Amino acid sequence: MQSRHEASTQSDNLQTVRTTVKRRRERAAYDRATVESILDEALVCHLGFTLGDQPYVIPTTYARVGATLYVHGAAANRALKGLASGLSACVTVTLIDGLVLARSAFHHSMNYRSVVLLGQARPVTDLEEKRAAMVALVEHVIPGRQASVRAPSDEELRETLVLALPIREASVKIRTGPPIDDATDMARECWAGEIPLRQVADRPITDPALAEGIVADPAAVTYTRPGTNS
Amino acid sequence: MQSRHEASTQSDNLQTVRTTVKRRRERAAYDRATVESILDEALVCHLGFTLGDQPYVIPTTYARVGATLYVHGAAANRALKGLASGLSACVTVTLIDGLVLARSAFHHSMNYRSVVLLGQARPVTDLEEKRAAMVALVEHVIPGRQASVRAPSDEELRETLVLALPIREASVKIRTGPPIDDATDMARECWAGEIPLRQVADRPITDPALAEGIVADPAAVTYTRPGTNS
Repeated sequence: MQSRHEASTQSDNLQTVRTTVKRRRERAAYDRATVESILDEALVCHLGFTLGDQPYVIPTTYARVGATLYVHGAAANRALKGLASGLSACVTVTLIDGLVLARSAFHHSMNYRSVVLLGQARPVTDLEEKRAAMVALVEHVIPGRQASVRAPSDEELRETLVLALPIREASVKIRTGPPIDDATDMARECWAGEIPLRQVADRPITDPALAEGIVADPAAVTYTRPGTNS
Repeated sequence: MQSRHEASTQSDNLQTVRTTVKRRRERAAYDRATVESILDEALVCHLGFTLGDQPYVIPTTYARVGATLYVHGAAANRALKGLASGLSACVTVTLIDGLVLARSAFHHSMNYRSVVLLGQARPVTDLEEKRAAMVALVEHVIPGRQASVRAPSDEELRETLVLALPIREASVKIRTGPPIDDATDMARECWAGEIPLRQVADRPITDPALAEGIVADPAAVTYTRPGTNS
């Protein structure tokens, strides 16, 4: 669906003046493949918008289809309505990979991968694109799930506002590896290194109201995110 | 330190017109204790600010000391400088507790706890408060760590901009429990339930440059976040 809207303007370099990282440039990237890999691994984005002079940041689910990022919410949601009317948006996605323990307080850090995506969203009005976006929102969380669930009804589609943000202007920041301490601190009697962090899924909890005789979805039993090393 | 600035205005109810949740009000909370528990468990916040008409959202570490939230960065960081000059800020913290798999695409959801905190930050100029904030930033990530690392030097303090945001105006949203499907979908041949998610720490990776004979920090070997059930 997104091809009609965004494909003609695709570039593999998402750097613009506004997305150019000014500090620690060695940690920055702007290529579409890296942006997409982070967007596809994370579960939740933080959506920023401004009402009056007050910025708001709300966590929300999302899905990527080609060069488009979709978010959704209730049709009456004032934030989404504002964004649909052309407010500028910022979508930030962050994966925390570990803690970086240095020999000095100053050099403590984290290993992470983050995407900052800028742009203006359009409301998705085409019913087929809207339906595909809602499928993508489920599939982003648990691939294959859509096959076994009831698809959105026309009424549910009307109740839902889906916004499409072109993935056109973005930056990535990535930190990896051990701490970087001052030379004068290296002999200090203090352990230094990384604590790797990852998100894991525990055993699924069946809905107490589940009809009898239905076994757990295999994708729920062995749940992992794409790109995770678990 | 924060007591001189923020304690006199402390209230246990952080609800204002701007932080009143309009949708799914049954998931909202505004009490200081709940706000603090989420802030203390999470590792990273998403800091929102507006330059021109463009919102930006950046992931960053933070620490809570009493009724104050501290963030920090390089003194030359243009976002932090803007915030120090009085720009409005939004700090959002999100913990993802699980995936909620419903019988319909429409009712898929997540279990989560999030805080949205609004306000204006002040630059921390008092050297003692700044030093305490930098200690708190390390202690937030790994309690007890400060005792074994080199404290910030005067030069490091000068190079760092620390911002203090009063925890005065906030909302919490919490979703827990199984999916809530339509009555007409309940008999559907489709597994439904929750997949609990949590962040875990793997075995620490020692800095290859570590001086010989230094054993791992016990807090790094058995790392957990406060409030986690792991």
